Amino acid sequence: MRDPVPPTIEWRGDRVRLVDQRLLPGRLAFVECATVDELCAAIATMAVRGAPALGVAGAMGVALAATRGEDLTGAAARLCATRPTAVNLAWGVERALAAPDPVAEACRLAEEDVERNRRLGAAGAPLLAELGRATPATELRVLTHCNAGALACAGYGTAVGVIRAAHEAGVALHVWVDETRPVLQGARLTAWELERLGISCTVVVDAMAGGLMASGEVDCVVVGADRVAANGDTANKVGTYTLAVLARHHRIPFYVAAPTSTVDLRCASGADIPIERRGQDEVACVGDQRVVPPGVTVENRAFDVTPAALVTAVVTDEGVARPPYRRALARLAGRGGSRLKVTGDRSDLMK
Amino acid sequence: MRDPVPPTIEWRGDRVRLVDQRLLPGRLAFVECATVDELCAAIATMAVRGAPALGVAGAMGVALAATRGEDLTGAAARLCATRPTAVNLAWGVERALAAPDPVAEACRLAEEDVERNRRLGAAGAPLLAELGRATPATELRVLTHCNAGALACAGYGTAVGVIRAAHEAGVALHVWVDETRPVLQGARLTAWELERLGISCTVVVDAMAGGLMASGEVDCVVVGADRVAANGDTANKVGTYTLAVLARHHRIPFYVAAPTSTVDLRCASGADIPIERRGQDEVACVGDQRVVPPGVTVENRAFDVTPAALVTAVVTDEGVARPPYRRALARLAGRGGSRLKVTGDRSDLMK
Repeated sequence: MRDPVPPTIEWRGDRVRLVDQRLLPGRLAFVECATVDELCAAIATMAVRGAPALGVAGAMGVALAATRGEDLTGAAARLCATRPTAVNLAWGVERALAAPDPVAEACRLAEEDVERNRRLGAAGAPLLAELGRATPATELRVLTHCNAGALACAGYGTAVGVIRAAHEAGVALHVWVDETRPVLQGARLTAWELERLGISCTVVVDAMAGGLMASGEVDCVVVGADRVAANGDTANKVGTYTLAVLARHHRIPFYVAAPTSTVDLRCASGADIPIERRGQDEVACVGDQRVVPPGVTVENRAFDVTPAALVTAVVTDEGVARPPYRRALARLAGRGGSRLKVTGDRSDLMK
Repeated sequence: MRDPVPPTIEWRGDRVRLVDQRLLPGRLAFVECATVDELCAAIATMAVRGAPALGVAGAMGVALAATRGEDLTGAAARLCATRPTAVNLAWGVERALAAPDPVAEACRLAEEDVERNRRLGAAGAPLLAELGRATPATELRVLTHCNAGALACAGYGTAVGVIRAAHEAGVALHVWVDETRPVLQGARLTAWELERLGISCTVVVDAMAGGLMASGEVDCVVVGADRVAANGDTANKVGTYTLAVLARHHRIPFYVAAPTSTVDLRCASGADIPIERRGQDEVACVGDQRVVPPGVTVENRAFDVTPAALVTAVVTDEGVARPPYRRALARLAGRGGSRLKVTGDRSDLMK
C-alpha cells in the first residue's frame, strides 16, 4: 500500500528534500537544502520538526557536510544547537559522525525510523484495542496533542502510528486533535494526516481537553515525546503535562509513544532536559497581525516535562514499558540499541 | 483618577456605543448600534462580550426597542438568544423589561456594574495581599484566563478588578495572561488593559499554564465567570476547568471573581448551565487563512464548567463566599439583590 503521507525527509542526489511543514495544510510543497546552513534554517523555522524527523535531519546534515568537504565537527555543533530539547537530533548527528559513510548512514536511519515506528505502532495497537472493547461508546475516543505522525518522523508516525496501527487492525476510533498553539501542529499537520489516512477526527482548542474529559468523551490520551529520561520523565510539546494531569484527575490512561531512539538513558530525569524557549512572535503574531499589545512580553516555552508518575505506559518499538520505568526503559532501549548495532555492523561488512 | 480603559458600553442619545473588541489591541474604535438587530449582531460577533457587559447590553437592547417603539418581548427574546451561557444577558433584559423607563434602567445598570466591580475588587484584594506576604517570590504571580477586565463589564473588571485593586493597594504582582484561544481575549484584551493600568504581565499560550505551575511560578489563579450556579459550580471561558484541575493538583488557590448579578440561584448546578457552541471558523481560520484541512471538523465549545469542589473561593461585590457555597452564595446574592432593589426603588421615587 502506498503511504498516503509523502516522505517527510529524503536524501536526493546531493541534497536533503523536506516536506515544508510551514505551508501545510494549505499546500504540499518541498524545501531542498544543499548546505548545512540551509538545513539548520529549515530546522530552526520548523519546516521540519518532530523528534524522529530531527534525528534523520541531523544525520543528513552531517552527510551534507561530508559530501561538501565541510568541517564535520563544526557542522555537527551547528545542527545540534538549532533545537535543544529533542534528543534525536544529537543522536542522529552522532550516528552519522561515527559512520564511515555518513550519507549511507543517514539514509539507513530514515529507513530504520519507519520500520521502528511500524513496530511501535504494532506494540501500541493492542492497548487501544483493549480500551476499545471496554469503552461504552461506539468508538474509542483518543485525544492527541501536537503532531507525532508521519510528518514528525521519516514516516508512519509514533503516537499517530499507534492510532494508525489500531485503525488498520480494525479498532473503531475517533481522534480529538488538540490544535496545539502556537504553531498549530495538531490542527495543521495531525488533522491533515488523519484525514489522508481515513481516520475520523475533530480539531479542538488545547483548552477544551479538560471539558472533554469531564464529560466522559475521552477514553485515552496518546502523545509523542521529544525526549524520555531514564526514569520515564518525558519532555514533549508544551501542554502535554497539562493533559497528563487532566488524564490522572479523570482516571484516563495516558500513553507516551516514543521510539527507543528518543529514550535518553544518559539523562537521569526530566530536570536534566533542556527546555527550548522560542521567539515571542510565534505567539504574539497571528498571520500578519500582532495580537499582543506592543510593550507586553510573551514567554514561549516550546516543551514541558511530564513526570513518569503520570504516564500509564511508554510504547516503544521494542515493546511497552510500564512503571517502574528505569529498569523497563533500560531493557527496551538496550534491545533497540543492539538491534541498531547489528544493522550497523552488517552494513559495515557489506562495504 | 480618569479610568485608563474607556467605557465598554454606553448609552448615547438614542444609540448604544460599544468599544469594538474585535479590533483591539490594534485599534481602539467604537461600534454604534441604533437597532436591536445591530446590537444582536455586535453581541453575536463578540464586538462586546463578557458576562457583566452583556448584562448591560441586554438592558440597553430593550431600551433601544423601547425608544423605537418596537415589540419589547420579541426584542428581549432575540437578545437572549444571541449567547446562552452568560446569565447576565437575560438578567439585564429582565431588569430593563420590568422597569418603567428602560433607558434609565439600562444606564443605571451600567453605573451599578462599575460600583459593584469596585466593591468586588475591594473584597478580593486582601486575598491577594495575604498570598503576596506568603510567596517566596518578590512578586505575587497571578494567572488569569480570558478577559474578565473592564472590557468584560461596564468598567473596572471582575477578575482583573481584583488584581487591579490589589495593585492599587500596593501588592507587588505579576500576571500570567493565558492568550485564550480561539478569540484571544487574554492576549488581545487583558494584556491591553493591564498594560494601560501599569500592571506587569506576560502572555502565554493556554497550554503553558501546567508547566508554569509545576515549576512553582504561579501563586494563584483568578478568573471571571459567565454564570455561577447555586451550588458554586461555575461556567466560564473554555479552559477554566483545566486551570482549576491544574491548580488543585499543585495546591494553588483558585478564585472565581463574580458579581452577584452572575450568581444564578435558579440554576441548581453546573449541569443546568447551557454551554454555547460557536462556529467552526473561529478555530479553523487564523487571520484570512484556513489552518484546519478541508473536510476536518472542529468542535468549538465556548465555555466549560468548573465544579464548586475545585473553587477555593468566589469573590463577589457582597463579600467572599467559601465552601459550602449553597448557603454562602444565597446570602451574598440575596444581599446584592436587595441593594439593587433599594437603588431601583429610590430611582422610581426620583422620577
